[in-house]
Amino acid sequence: MWQFDCLEKFKISQQKTGKDMQKRYSSSPISGKRYLIPTTDREPGLELFLDDNKNRDLVVVQGLGFVGTAMSLVVANSDDHQYAVVGVDQGNEASYWKIGDINSGILPLVSSDPLIEEYFHESRHRNNFYATQDIDVFSKADVIIVDINLDVTKSRDGAGNLTAYDVPMDGFKSAIKTIGHSCREDVLILVETTVPPGTCKKIVYPLLVECFQARGLAVHRFKLGHSYERVMPGPNYIHSIKNFYRVYSGIDETSAEAVEEFLKSVISTDEYPLTRLKNTESTEMAKVLENSYRAMNISFMIEWSRFAERSGVDLFKVVDAIRLRPTHVNLMYPGIGVGGYCLTKDPLMASWACERLFGIASGLESSVKAVENNDRMPMFCFKFVNEILKKHHKSSTKIGLLGVAYGPGIGDTRFSPVQDFYSRLCGEFQDIQCQDPYVKFWDELNLKIETSLEVFFTNDFDVLIVTTAHKYYLENNLIYELIARSKREMIIIDTVGLLDFLKLPAHFSRDRNFYVLGVGQNES
Amino acid sequence: MWQFDCLEKFKISQQKTGKDMQKRYSSSPISGKRYLIPTTDREPGLELFLDDNKNRDLVVVQGLGFVGTAMSLVVANSDDHQYAVVGVDQGNEASYWKIGDINSGILPLVSSDPLIEEYFHESRHRNNFYATQDIDVFSKADVIIVDINLDVTKSRDGAGNLTAYDVPMDGFKSAIKTIGHSCREDVLILVETTVPPGTCKKIVYPLLVECFQARGLAVHRFKLGHSYERVMPGPNYIHSIKNFYRVYSGIDETSAEAVEEFLKSVISTDEYPLTRLKNTESTEMAKVLENSYRAMNISFMIEWSRFAERSGVDLFKVVDAIRLRPTHVNLMYPGIGVGGYCLTKDPLMASWACERLFGIASGLESSVKAVENNDRMPMFCFKFVNEILKKHHKSSTKIGLLGVAYGPGIGDTRFSPVQDFYSRLCGEFQDIQCQDPYVKFWDELNLKIETSLEVFFTNDFDVLIVTTAHKYYLENNLIYELIARSKREMIIIDTVGLLDFLKLPAHFSRDRNFYVLGVGQNES
Repeated sequence: MWQFDCLEKFKISQQKTGKDMQKRYSSSPISGKRYLIPTTDREPGLELFLDDNKNRDLVVVQGLGFVGTAMSLVVANSDDHQYAVVGVDQGNEASYWKIGDINSGILPLVSSDPLIEEYFHESRHRNNFYATQDIDVFSKADVIIVDINLDVTKSRDGAGNLTAYDVPMDGFKSAIKTIGHSCREDVLILVETTVPPGTCKKIVYPLLVECFQARGLAVHRFKLGHSYERVMPGPNYIHSIKNFYRVYSGIDETSAEAVEEFLKSVISTDEYPLTRLKNTESTEMAKVLENSYRAMNISFMIEWSRFAERSGVDLFKVVDAIRLRPTHVNLMYPGIGVGGYCLTKDPLMASWACERLFGIASGLESSVKAVENNDRMPMFCFKFVNEILKKHHKSSTKIGLLGVAYGPGIGDTRFSPVQDFYSRLCGEFQDIQCQDPYVKFWDELNLKIETSLEVFFTNDFDVLIVTTAHKYYLENNLIYELIARSKREMIIIDTVGLLDFLKLPAHFSRDRNFYVLGVGQNES
Repeated sequence: MWQFDCLEKFKISQQKTGKDMQKRYSSSPISGKRYLIPTTDREPGLELFLDDNKNRDLVVVQGLGFVGTAMSLVVANSDDHQYAVVGVDQGNEASYWKIGDINSGILPLVSSDPLIEEYFHESRHRNNFYATQDIDVFSKADVIIVDINLDVTKSRDGAGNLTAYDVPMDGFKSAIKTIGHSCREDVLILVETTVPPGTCKKIVYPLLVECFQARGLAVHRFKLGHSYERVMPGPNYIHSIKNFYRVYSGIDETSAEAVEEFLKSVISTDEYPLTRLKNTESTEMAKVLENSYRAMNISFMIEWSRFAERSGVDLFKVVDAIRLRPTHVNLMYPGIGVGGYCLTKDPLMASWACERLFGIASGLESSVKAVENNDRMPMFCFKFVNEILKKHHKSSTKIGLLGVAYGPGIGDTRFSPVQDFYSRLCGEFQDIQCQDPYVKFWDELNLKIETSLEVFFTNDFDVLIVTTAHKYYLENNLIYELIARSKREMIIIDTVGLLDFLKLPAHFSRDRNFYVLGVGQNES
């Protein structure tokens, strides 16, 4: 949560004596470095950086997560390098390491996209990207991009039913106030955070007006817009921001114009034309609708997976056949479930907005149901796996888990369906080891992860479970070679439809060694 | 229902004296002709036709509906005209007119696809397409294609909740037995009817074996396959059969080979390669999955329409913006609801199959829910329209309804959402007139329909409601010209997002004259 709304408190804390101050550190899971969190929110290098960049427009990005960091890099690498970019995050144990890493020349992300490293090093070399916890930088910004998280809290009962959900807005509001307290009168504030439809008009705008009035500023000069990114933190990480159709809006005509001008300077809008929608509610809705659509289509397929498994149908082949039809190309494949930061919460944001921001009953039943269904998926997947292992009397066995990230080519474990699946598996089996080429450390479980597939295979597993469809496993048939070299007769359970049975060693049998989620062996 | 399983009964009925026989007629809603239904099931021209075509392979198509008729024409017009096609339907009031029309040289369909007329007249000219009620023709067929209907019955409560549904199989079983009683030992039977997954293996195959055993025939020589069409009875009616990716399967390897060979001779498989799936359950599932996917995506959008209308969002524009993303091109537009023969029932077939053919609990909740939601849509649409008209105090008013078919360019009114909508509207308003360029007669409501838009407009309506998005209305800006010429200040309510506000006369106002379902005027 952004705790910067009480600037006064901060100033007081800075005046505390050294005796009262405890040294605090933030450790980077990427570089392994441990950073001392400065006791003041001032970053000594910031003034130097701003001075060096005084001929550039200043873009301040609030939030250095998967979106904010990548967006910062895209802006810093715009065609004519007209922008200096400062990323702001919080000076606490959980976040400060990103600032430390960036200013030490280390990209605080692992990604399968080589372009993001390139962008990072070029911006460092050009010296137009810097990170800080110093919120005074907002006062100098021409453009402020809001890329902080807005979470949804969910309550579930034992059966996995969604019993309640909420969008606690305090942290988000506090972040907006932080900006409102210090930004320039004529600033452009561009909200990229996924928010409940209605948020910009009914929450952000009034808050900014309130701050401006308290500061005695004119309230008609700032510009407020909304435009959502479609970041895919996989192999096309940078492209997913820079080379994609953007949808945007402004709280008024002037704001919309300002957003358009800014986006044109950083996004490849010639190739991917912008779409302006008539109000911020429309773009806010577009984002959550996009993700609800996807979440619902995954949920839909989960239900058919169960039917296919029981009726002797290979659902992957069925989906392949159907997707030849252009009206059905978005049909999803079976899998372990949905993860990541967006699809697991955005449908609920819309439903919450109906009720809380517009005072109407939410009729978005399919969207809410999709989240509930998807959240249950790892449990189904566990049952699928457990039944197979029980059938083989494999209760004490050495299990290797391939992939902990929530999706192919991604080093992001947030809300990964593998987490719930792994936890359930741990309840039944003792010896489980995890590998992922893009995850060095599994934050949520505080677990070091093996990134090398070769090293991982020397452990000689009885059971191999594929839980993320990383293309990496298939490169040069790596995984098939390792399986063939293995000394044990393994059981392989593919929960994401990655492997090809025909490439497994000849002694492998579909009935004995190879199982795929969503594929019925024979009619049961 | 196919009542041909009791061949004996038929033979007896034919021996009845003239005194016992009442003259029965069947009237064509297409040609207006009235046909005397023959008292014997023999069609006098059939023997002549078969004799003329003795050098051609004989394909008998069971069922002359929207699929069977079009499929017959595609087969009759295969590249080398190698097939003679006989369409079989029933000799009753409801069906015989199709036989009468075909044999009188009249296509028993209205379609916006000129190719279907062309195919019909060419096959008539070539004399390789004939229609009959004479089921003995099955005994001469090399290939029998099953294109009869299989319906789903639904029960709903007053609120539109789906309380029960069933797939009554008696008629379908009886049709299969009709074939089994007389077909050749080595026939290829290709089921195209959409059936609950598992039907070919668990119902059709055992029935055929039973018939063959009763006839003392070998049961290993007949071939049974399943391949589903994707007929769209619109402007690409013929193309939707001939030029599309077919999915097929056989009950065994020989059957699959035979289906493949046949399909290759009638479908453009070079351009649209065939996909063979491993068993009939797979193709049966593929068909109902396809349609469930579509039904669910319509249902999903219905829910968001309500939200958009209440929050001042133009959902059409939002969908346009989202569909630029290739992963989201299948997102549907808002509208009056879903109709037609398939999407309104197929999701329930799958769910029914889970429970009744495989004995497992159906987890296909989203699919079942989609049908329920979609069936309710005309009610929502009516409320939307009624609220507007009430606001304008238009309780006694002259209403024109544009489009009664279930979809654009289609002359098919089966399960059209307009039907429920129209019936509800009739409960509130007295003077409602309907127009549809492709529907001369609204079977379900026994209503003659005006097909000319020009003639229709001379009625000078107070309210115009667009209920089917026929492109015909937009051709040469026809509808805009007629609106501009109208003497009254009309209210236009577009329930399918067809019209462009900017093309309406300048005095039209969004707040006063023009409303679109799924588009919020202002936040309410």
